[in-house]
Amino acid sequence: MMKLGFVSAIVPDLSLEEVVNLAADLGYECVEVCCWPKGKAERRYAGVTHIDLARFTAADAARVNDLFASRGVSISGLGYYPNPLSPNAQEAKVAVTHLRRVIRAARLLGVGVVNTFIGRDWTKTIEGNWPRFRRVWKPLIRLAEDQGVKIGIENCPMLFTNDEWPGGKNLAHSPAIWRRMFEEIPSKNFGLNFDPSHLVWQRIDYVRAAREFADRIFHVHAKDARVDSEGLYAHGILGLPPAYHTPKLPGLGDVDWGRLISVLTDAGYRGPVCVEVEDRAYERTLATRKLALAQSAAYLRQFIPARK
Amino acid sequence: MMKLGFVSAIVPDLSLEEVVNLAADLGYECVEVCCWPKGKAERRYAGVTHIDLARFTAADAARVNDLFASRGVSISGLGYYPNPLSPNAQEAKVAVTHLRRVIRAARLLGVGVVNTFIGRDWTKTIEGNWPRFRRVWKPLIRLAEDQGVKIGIENCPMLFTNDEWPGGKNLAHSPAIWRRMFEEIPSKNFGLNFDPSHLVWQRIDYVRAAREFADRIFHVHAKDARVDSEGLYAHGILGLPPAYHTPKLPGLGDVDWGRLISVLTDAGYRGPVCVEVEDRAYERTLATRKLALAQSAAYLRQFIPARK
Amino acid sequence: MMKLGFVSAIVPDLSLEEVVNLAADLGYECVEVCCWPKGKAERRYAGVTHIDLARFTAADAARVNDLFASRGVSISGLGYYPNPLSPNAQEAKVAVTHLRRVIRAARLLGVGVVNTFIGRDWTKTIEGNWPRFRRVWKPLIRLAEDQGVKIGIENCPMLFTNDEWPGGKNLAHSPAIWRRMFEEIPSKNFGLNFDPSHLVWQRIDYVRAAREFADRIFHVHAKDARVDSEGLYAHGILGLPPAYHTPKLPGLGDVDWGRLISVLTDAGYRGPVCVEVEDRAYERTLATRKLALAQSAAYLRQFIPARK
Amino acid sequence: MMKLGFVSAIVPDLSLEEVVNLAADLGYECVEVCCWPKGKAERRYAGVTHIDLARFTAADAARVNDLFASRGVSISGLGYYPNPLSPNAQEAKVAVTHLRRVIRAARLLGVGVVNTFIGRDWTKTIEGNWPRFRRVWKPLIRLAEDQGVKIGIENCPMLFTNDEWPGGKNLAHSPAIWRRMFEEIPSKNFGLNFDPSHLVWQRIDYVRAAREFADRIFHVHAKDARVDSEGLYAHGILGLPPAYHTPKLPGLGDVDWGRLISVLTDAGYRGPVCVEVEDRAYERTLATRKLALAQSAAYLRQFIPARK
Amino acid sequence: MMKLGFVSAIVPDLSLEEVVNLAADLGYECVEVCCWPKGKAERRYAGVTHIDLARFTAADAARVNDLFASRGVSISGLGYYPNPLSPNAQEAKVAVTHLRRVIRAARLLGVGVVNTFIGRDWTKTIEGNWPRFRRVWKPLIRLAEDQGVKIGIENCPMLFTNDEWPGGKNLAHSPAIWRRMFEEIPSKNFGLNFDPSHLVWQRIDYVRAAREFADRIFHVHAKDARVDSEGLYAHGILGLPPAYHTPKLPGLGDVDWGRLISVLTDAGYRGPVCVEVEDRAYERTLATRKLALAQSAAYLRQFIPARK
Amino acid sequence: MMKLGFVSAIVPDLSLEEVVNLAADLGYECVEVCCWPKGKAERRYAGVTHIDLARFTAADAARVNDLFASRGVSISGLGYYPNPLSPNAQEAKVAVTHLRRVIRAARLLGVGVVNTFIGRDWTKTIEGNWPRFRRVWKPLIRLAEDQGVKIGIENCPMLFTNDEWPGGKNLAHSPAIWRRMFEEIPSKNFGLNFDPSHLVWQRIDYVRAAREFADRIFHVHAKDARVDSEGLYAHGILGLPPAYHTPKLPGLGDVDWGRLISVLTDAGYRGPVCVEVEDRAYERTLATRKLALAQSAAYLRQFIPARK
Repeated sequence: MMKLGFVSAIVPDLSLEEVVNLAADLGYECVEVCCWPKGKAERRYAGVTHIDLARFTAADAARVNDLFASRGVSISGLGYYPNPLSPNAQEAKVAVTHLRRVIRAARLLGVGVVNTFIGRDWTKTIEGNWPRFRRVWKPLIRLAEDQGVKIGIENCPMLFTNDEWPGGKNLAHSPAIWRRMFEEIPSKNFGLNFDPSHLVWQRIDYVRAAREFADRIFHVHAKDARVDSEGLYAHGILGLPPAYHTPKLPGLGDVDWGRLISVLTDAGYRGPVCVEVEDRAYERTLATRKLALAQSAAYLRQFIPARK
Repeated sequence: MMKLGFVSAIVPDLSLEEVVNLAADLGYECVEVCCWPKGKAERRYAGVTHIDLARFTAADAARVNDLFASRGVSISGLGYYPNPLSPNAQEAKVAVTHLRRVIRAARLLGVGVVNTFIGRDWTKTIEGNWPRFRRVWKPLIRLAEDQGVKIGIENCPMLFTNDEWPGGKNLAHSPAIWRRMFEEIPSKNFGLNFDPSHLVWQRIDYVRAAREFADRIFHVHAKDARVDSEGLYAHGILGLPPAYHTPKLPGLGDVDWGRLISVLTDAGYRGPVCVEVEDRAYERTLATRKLALAQSAAYLRQFIPARK
Repeated sequence: MMKLGFVSAIVPDLSLEEVVNLAADLGYECVEVCCWPKGKAERRYAGVTHIDLARFTAADAARVNDLFASRGVSISGLGYYPNPLSPNAQEAKVAVTHLRRVIRAARLLGVGVVNTFIGRDWTKTIEGNWPRFRRVWKPLIRLAEDQGVKIGIENCPMLFTNDEWPGGKNLAHSPAIWRRMFEEIPSKNFGLNFDPSHLVWQRIDYVRAAREFADRIFHVHAKDARVDSEGLYAHGILGLPPAYHTPKLPGLGDVDWGRLISVLTDAGYRGPVCVEVEDRAYERTLATRKLALAQSAAYLRQFIPARK
Repeated sequence: MMKLGFVSAIVPDLSLEEVVNLAADLGYECVEVCCWPKGKAERRYAGVTHIDLARFTAADAARVNDLFASRGVSISGLGYYPNPLSPNAQEAKVAVTHLRRVIRAARLLGVGVVNTFIGRDWTKTIEGNWPRFRRVWKPLIRLAEDQGVKIGIENCPMLFTNDEWPGGKNLAHSPAIWRRMFEEIPSKNFGLNFDPSHLVWQRIDYVRAAREFADRIFHVHAKDARVDSEGLYAHGILGLPPAYHTPKLPGLGDVDWGRLISVLTDAGYRGPVCVEVEDRAYERTLATRKLALAQSAAYLRQFIPARK
Repeated sequence: MMKLGFVSAIVPDLSLEEVVNLAADLGYECVEVCCWPKGKAERRYAGVTHIDLARFTAADAARVNDLFASRGVSISGLGYYPNPLSPNAQEAKVAVTHLRRVIRAARLLGVGVVNTFIGRDWTKTIEGNWPRFRRVWKPLIRLAEDQGVKIGIENCPMLFTNDEWPGGKNLAHSPAIWRRMFEEIPSKNFGLNFDPSHLVWQRIDYVRAAREFADRIFHVHAKDARVDSEGLYAHGILGLPPAYHTPKLPGLGDVDWGRLISVLTDAGYRGPVCVEVEDRAYERTLATRKLALAQSAAYLRQFIPARK
Repeated sequence: MMKLGFVSAIVPDLSLEEVVNLAADLGYECVEVCCWPKGKAERRYAGVTHIDLARFTAADAARVNDLFASRGVSISGLGYYPNPLSPNAQEAKVAVTHLRRVIRAARLLGVGVVNTFIGRDWTKTIEGNWPRFRRVWKPLIRLAEDQGVKIGIENCPMLFTNDEWPGGKNLAHSPAIWRRMFEEIPSKNFGLNFDPSHLVWQRIDYVRAAREFADRIFHVHAKDARVDSEGLYAHGILGLPPAYHTPKLPGLGDVDWGRLISVLTDAGYRGPVCVEVEDRAYERTLATRKLALAQSAAYLRQFIPARK
């Protein structure tokens, strides 16, 4: 059966130990641990470092694992979402270098999955990004294979603000592109961190996608999104996506979770489903962010059984 | 975050202390306390007196507040729903007099909201009621301002039985009327006790209404309603409303609670959401009415987090 | 097969001969001829006198029939829509007296159907109108039986303006009421002039109604109605009906004509379907009203075959 | 109020005592106990014997009742689902003989309901099965009346595999057939074990059926079913039902449980609602089957209150 | 562009010459000519012989073609719909023998398409019919190839009466079966006479089917069907199909003709679209059947242009 | 009442005289005449010159008007759709210069409307295009005012091919932008050539837009568009628009023409509705393009009456 977890990005102000305790207290079975390099976050929800991988050793890994085991919680995956195809060569280099570090750390920790973005030069078409995608990602996937780690690409278009216009900062946003990615690099370690919330507003049938890509889904994000008819009327789908949709907690948006979980269970998915909180109505204080996690668990337990 | 509560009218047979204990036992965070004048109820769900305001003093208020505090429960509002515009002058006078008493009591208790009806002479058009609305309500709202109390008008048409035909006993049932009310008496203390169940069968988009009147919503009632196709076929919308709809517990009717709570959270609503039980299938005994409250809490906790 | 016609009320400025020519020129097969007593119209679409029945003889009837026959057009029914249950005794008396005249004229003309309203004292409930309905209508239906004429009651609530509030000026607006009417006066000559446009905004399933009352449908009006979401939001269904819907030509509203005609054909209905133009966008001049009839015929010929 | 239970067929590997403990631990209030004759199961979910009725005495019954009482759980009904109309005379005879035994045992246990199938010779039409239905079932219902036991016929068509084609192994699958059954044998002890999941894929309005047959519903199965658009496209409704639908846990299929429970509460149904797990995604191990029961309870508690 | 035609079966009482004149008079561009062997019809719409092929020569063909040319009408296809897989060996033999005759006649006439059924032993499963399908149809398709004629299999399940239960008399009713047929006999001369009306009640997406099988569609039947909710409620999809649907003229059923024709135009279909009248409401007299053809043409001309 | 016309771009191979004859023969009442400068078309449907404005005099205008009058057809507007905001300065200059010429010609011809595009530098955001929009369009609108001509901006995003990515070549594609345009240049001569087909795939409610901008709609294009679920699944709305939609004739796409025309009639629109053929299935030959115009007229005459 699936395991319910959350993404640690929503509690950057907690220590790893506090994160583990929070998960256990709220009845979560796992956590996706954010592993940005230490330093300033360049955007919301980024730059969170719950495990510092700068000089990460087997001993560090053992300590982390002991901490999780002590509360009966597991690590669903390591999360780091930069832009490895950034037109800014320095930014891209940092991304790739740290990503390699995250992959190696996953191995040390015995964690099977690293979640990240493909990245994109947002000023270019998909076609225009392809040669660089191939160049950057072939060696990364090879490393993942060597380390026995799976790479779960989140399907977020990263197209929310004017500086991400027009193409967004992550190529991997549609079934057509996924098909091409997996044909280009046909590795069993290359797959998806499947988030239905981004598909809802793109009008992509996420239930059908969950079926088609069932064997590529390594990790699932439980985020929801509400399409807003007023914004859609004014701007249409050519507007910036935030003009017509709002990210929300599971159950407060347009995703039909019963249907999605129904199809995932039949497709044989038995991995983590991690709540990703990006609902501004719940973000003001640490207390409200914890309530968001409590409410999300209450909602999802209708569809994902508690283990104990 | 919102607070989950219930309206005390459903347990008229319990003392205030028992009400508070029930709330605490079922995990409710607040209660709307019914404050009719003592005496005979003139209709279902009315005439309930959980706090007798006949000679209500600061000392009484302190006792009440201590009782609530002892179980960690709060008062979401005081509730009294008479017809202050009744064509029966005596009935109207009683209503207004007691309403003034409730407003003053709210102040003593430190409770911010009093919930009530505008009332209506049901034999007259909206237009025909307007002059009297103005005359009766301007001083009432002025008093509320003086006392620092907000008035939440419930949007129930009070049109259920033949003696309420044709106009019902409460003017405030549609956005067009609300707009006019708030233009007529533009006070920040004049707003709504928003109940989506009455909008569902009126075919009024309650999600849009929640957006438009977000800053006027002082209190929310969680009641549901199911439109029944058989009755609708036979009588159409010109029939008496009970001919084609049935009040039900949240989750057993046509309200999309995920969507409504979703929009309320974004609109900044952080007040109480009080379950109002008027579902006859659950009313036969005290035990079944308590089960109704238990079930409603289980349902709504998907969308409203528990605080502890 | 059904016959396509129109109601002559829309061209009050034409003589009967011009009406017949118009029908023939536009390919209509029949006309419902309006037969108000001569004099001032008391509301839109009323007071039209295409045949003056003041002193109507068998010779007059023969002349009228010759006129129709000369262009191959027939009379679908005689139309007169007053309020025979008006609280104004004089108005009611005029209505009943003239209605008797129309029934007798139908006989003289060999026209099988007279279309009209039950009427209503709009200030009283349905129950409150019932005794008078019984008193007035039993003799009227008896007369119709004697004359071998069928009475088609149009199902319009006549609730459009404030002076018709709250009950409207015609009782016969819903299946529940029709069932009771036909139980009360179980005559084969008592039935409906079925107009789906009034059912659409009452949310009554007109397709189901067409099945249930198939053997009571003596005449059909082809009028459409568009429910307007903006008005519905502001006023809800307790508003006056024109606040949330607009009468339109067939094809420009919410009626599914293919479905309705489909069910009527299966139910064995082979009578007239008469376009009733009450679409203000087409009413400004005689020319535009003729265009309305041309357009409506073009639309309905998809579902009702032309005979020639 | 309704009682939440489960059908014991999903845990054939547990002893009756373990079943009772499981129910109590997961907060279930009752269990439908499977009572096949001991021996080899002839198909999935059949052949389960949680109470062996071979030589069942009043003393045995007392022991069973003590066991249930010790954990505050009750027996919702006895379940045995064979084919009493099998064309194989021996199979039919075994079915009828054991069914009589189950009815008598129910009496001994003070359990009011026995759940079963009508059976069918699947190679014959409904008409072709009718004479035998009458012959076999009249005495069975008479016995049930004598014993004061109600017979709840589950509305499953038993048409899942090629050897059940074309008619399935249980006549009682549609409202038209139920009407005829109850007319044929008009006993108050003859009714339904109502399972909405089989109605969903048959396109039968289960909410309307719940209303029409409210006084015939003795027991409810909470199973869900998901219609799969890909299979429906390829095979259409003339394909074998598993070609286009999948049985699922409540909340993971197309049944609108809020609506169904809503109508059942209004119709006065206060009996058991027993989760029937036939979702293959949850069947691999005893542990996952228990999780299925935990998840189903979490889902249904939104609509059915816990009693304690 | 497509050509509008009709199937001659609806006017068995007309001579071929009268059929051609009717087509021309109503603005049809082509006719599917029914070519049963002379003799008694075994079911509705069968047994019609507009061209007698008993001893059909090149001279006969020339005469037929001259007749059609004289009115500017063409033959869209020859139609003969027997059961070549009947368990009655004699019936099957007659079917195959005459089918060979029709194919040869098509060649003589220069008509490209012969429309027919695969047939079926209705008491056996699809699997059980397959060996015989292969045996009978391989030589038939080979003959069609030799004669340069295409075979359009109509996708009607032929399951309307009890004697056709359970399997119906024509295998070719779903996409899954079509795929298998065309794999089994991969000839370019083997395709479909596509009729959306049978797909509507089977819940098969006919628009998707039109895309998938675009290059197999040799002929189209314009028939419609209305699914009736009352019958569906009572019998469900396991009832005989006429229990829950009714064949109707185009525009009077559930087919979305705009969408279907839209997709067919894009898919490159440029062949005939022949109205097939099986709507009992229009069948009583020759006159009403002609009106059915007039009405259907009026409806379809919205989507298929007239050539003149 | 509205006038039915077509855009002459679809018959570039016809002379103006032939265009006028075609309109009259097909029953069209008007034509939007394409007036590109003579020369090579830079894209499909562009570069058509039915009136050469190079040296256009009052005498030329009189000749054109006589030609139209001779067949009872009128000019609905002059059409020229270039990119006046092109980043290619030369292209922009040509556009503006010729546009001025078209405006002056409209005056000479007594034609009230010139239809065109705002244009856009497609590599820049809306914001980034705004200063230039203001600079280029203020003088153009001033000229239109001086000449008594209205400018109808077509709401096409011009985003179909990779070289138009990402922004498209016409700013004016959504209500939010229209509002801003009309605020920026608040002239009564500045409005829309309203085409619902581009709104359908942008998910903009075109019926609501028709209401909001009723007094800005100077001209209407009758083009339809079909959203294709397969393309939408694969690419989502971030794909190039042709990946998920197809332009079609009226009635073959997703526009609800009855609803749109219904609202336009009520809003008082009485201008031209011109069929714009961009449906590739009908473009292969002059004959099929004429059939497209015949079919479109047949479809739209249901909603727009013929004047004859």
